[in-house]
Amino acid sequence: MNGAVELPLGAAELSFTAAGEARVRRSILPSGVRVLTEQVPGSRSATVGFWVAVGSRDEAAADATRPSTFGSTHFLEHLLFKGTPTRTALDIAISFDAVGGEHNALTAKEYTCYYAKVQDRDLPMAVEVLADMFTSSLLDPVEFDNERGVILEELSMAGDDPGDVANERFFEAILGEHPLGRPIGGSADTINQATREAVHEHYVANYRPNDLVVTAAGALDHDELVAGLERALAAGGWNPALEAAPVERRANAPAPLAPTRELTVVQRPIEQVNLLLGVPGLVATDARRSTMSVLNTVFGSGMSSRLFQEVRERRGLAYAVYSFSPSYSDAGLFGMYAGCAPSKAPTVAELMRSELDRVARDGVTEDELRRASGQLAGASALALEDSDTRMSRLGRAELTLGEFVDLDEALRRIARVSADDVRALAADLASRPFSLVAVGASEESDFEGLVNGPPRSDAA
Amino acid sequence: MNGAVELPLGAAELSFTAAGEARVRRSILPSGVRVLTEQVPGSRSATVGFWVAVGSRDEAAADATRPSTFGSTHFLEHLLFKGTPTRTALDIAISFDAVGGEHNALTAKEYTCYYAKVQDRDLPMAVEVLADMFTSSLLDPVEFDNERGVILEELSMAGDDPGDVANERFFEAILGEHPLGRPIGGSADTINQATREAVHEHYVANYRPNDLVVTAAGALDHDELVAGLERALAAGGWNPALEAAPVERRANAPAPLAPTRELTVVQRPIEQVNLLLGVPGLVATDARRSTMSVLNTVFGSGMSSRLFQEVRERRGLAYAVYSFSPSYSDAGLFGMYAGCAPSKAPTVAELMRSELDRVARDGVTEDELRRASGQLAGASALALEDSDTRMSRLGRAELTLGEFVDLDEALRRIARVSADDVRALAADLASRPFSLVAVGASEESDFEGLVNGPPRSDAA
Repeated sequence: MNGAVELPLGAAELSFTAAGEARVRRSILPSGVRVLTEQVPGSRSATVGFWVAVGSRDEAAADATRPSTFGSTHFLEHLLFKGTPTRTALDIAISFDAVGGEHNALTAKEYTCYYAKVQDRDLPMAVEVLADMFTSSLLDPVEFDNERGVILEELSMAGDDPGDVANERFFEAILGEHPLGRPIGGSADTINQATREAVHEHYVANYRPNDLVVTAAGALDHDELVAGLERALAAGGWNPALEAAPVERRANAPAPLAPTRELTVVQRPIEQVNLLLGVPGLVATDARRSTMSVLNTVFGSGMSSRLFQEVRERRGLAYAVYSFSPSYSDAGLFGMYAGCAPSKAPTVAELMRSELDRVARDGVTEDELRRASGQLAGASALALEDSDTRMSRLGRAELTLGEFVDLDEALRRIARVSADDVRALAADLASRPFSLVAVGASEESDFEGLVNGPPRSDAA
Repeated sequence: MNGAVELPLGAAELSFTAAGEARVRRSILPSGVRVLTEQVPGSRSATVGFWVAVGSRDEAAADATRPSTFGSTHFLEHLLFKGTPTRTALDIAISFDAVGGEHNALTAKEYTCYYAKVQDRDLPMAVEVLADMFTSSLLDPVEFDNERGVILEELSMAGDDPGDVANERFFEAILGEHPLGRPIGGSADTINQATREAVHEHYVANYRPNDLVVTAAGALDHDELVAGLERALAAGGWNPALEAAPVERRANAPAPLAPTRELTVVQRPIEQVNLLLGVPGLVATDARRSTMSVLNTVFGSGMSSRLFQEVRERRGLAYAVYSFSPSYSDAGLFGMYAGCAPSKAPTVAELMRSELDRVARDGVTEDELRRASGQLAGASALALEDSDTRMSRLGRAELTLGEFVDLDEALRRIARVSADDVRALAADLASRPFSLVAVGASEESDFEGLVNGPPRSDAA
């Protein structure tokens, strides 16, 4: 343990909002590495994640001296699986495959996470291998060029998925030049231009002890996990006493947004139009985020929601239709999605707007409010049966929210949301400038007058 | 309980291969309804499924008097959510949404399943609502026409997904005129022609007590579940004593297959080619299915597998690459998938064939065999943490396999597979006629000589 400091709940940088979440523990190692665990009684498996608060938004635009580093975070994520001085890429793959574990990584806009889900007895191995990848990846030049090909295929796959394309264009349309508006993986151009040196620089600069957050949930013992982690990090050459420095978290305040793009039509010769309509939303720490959960549930989550009932059940216009509300440290979105025939897309877009206007004007019923509480409580209880969900919840608390909220407290906040809170938030959202993205066999003229003003032109 | 007969493990139609799976129970109600449950200690939720052994393969082709019923099984599945004499579609949706439950249905080639995952206290509600849907759906004509629109959108969505298209064409290519070769959802034509009468006939003919299998896993009590089910079925008008008749299961023998189609190219102006290469495989009850699990694991499942290492790790030719081996009562497939640039597709197809040939010639190592055992054991243990997986396992045992095999016994069978068994199966598969399907910007000439003989022509 060598001097790891365990912070009492509620202390220091992360506040704990929990009645009796005694099974969540948080330690800061002398090197600055933060460790959060949640022991789940009766569990026979565990999920562990290695997080760093660097995502695609942190990449640098091109300047006079060098090309942009767009896509380098995701490139680095791939390379961490490609070998260390003591493990080849095949060794790493075998470590997890041989025990039937799930292992993967995720590059997001504000963080990167490497994770594994294994049976309890295999958790020490998972910690050791992930620590080796994190501290000691070689970023071998031959592997680098091979992996460039793999990443280009991954981008092509996403480019062939009209829903993915619509989603990326939607972020661009609403967030404009904001770094959160960029796609996570970069583009074929930036990946073709990426150099091993730039990615290596990114690795050295951002994968330091102060940047690392390890979270784990399931069948585990906090002290054993911390001890194993310290051994593995030391084996990777990390001096446990050298690097400690204050932990920083992103500033959580809405950034001024660039003007949104009203209308984006990406023409494709396919059967459905992938339609997204939405507005700027809430940042992750907004006081109204419980209200947003309730609004999103009543409005567009589940078969009994307003959107589903109006667009699918009553009119048969779409198969998939829902709303969503991703949030980040300094920006957020509120969006509505439907996939439908090109001829129906204008009607569907109109219904989306008018349904939101209806909530903004008339609010929601007490019945809907009660059901939303029940829905969020039940769905959370089911989701928390999975150690993945608990591991992720700890990571988000540490990296984004600055607060760990247990389920009981989260549900108390949900229960305090009033019908008028929901109406007021819907009214606020409905007053913001709308963006519409359509990927499919649509024309810009199909949507004239449906967003804020006359449509503008956009090259597909 | 009214006379429900509980069969001892190993008795009657379903045999149990289990050392001590005392928590699995099976009863046959007087009406013929079969109920299988697995109580999972420590669980706080449960998944329940209502199964009927009718799938798309059971639909009728067009004849002189009427159009085909292709797609009617899936159409019926949608309609079961649209209301009964005592519950509107909205009521059904609210029942599950209000408790945050997951509820959905799945139409497959050989069965249809309606299921819900809920917290323990909500299980009686889930059984009651699913029983009402199963026994008493109205198939209202207005809802019928609305839902036609929804289903057409669902088909369009799948038609826009090049991976889905490749998969459907792959089944057609290998199984030819066999009913398992047809797509599950029908086509826009058959859905446009579908009549309420035909779907109603399908409902009345196939959703009878003898057809219903209810399986559940998680936090439950078998006797309570049976009692609640009997009450709900009686409320739906099912006479508990009237309908009992011997339970039938599909014959499990390989059907003679129509000649396979060697080469299918569906031209699309997209970035990747979705490439599938494969041969006829094993039926679900084949004695070699444990060998197939091992072969599929070593060959194409996970990052350490032969295909992943050769195609992605060593050559960077694809992002997604794997093998798969679906099996049915009288047919099966063995397939390999990769998504890659059109220029690389011939090389990837060649590698797939040569890698299979290599296993057929040289077999696998003892190391690979051991790892495959560990991988299957660990992955199964993790999967069985979820009550969904356990619920499905009971359904497959009753409807397809005729045998319930517990995890320990399944792993014993896996452990008995020898390197020579794997080599022999690979050699058998490699000797069968190959089919290649490519969806993307490929030409037939790209693949000349890569399958069995000269390519044949196919209209896209």
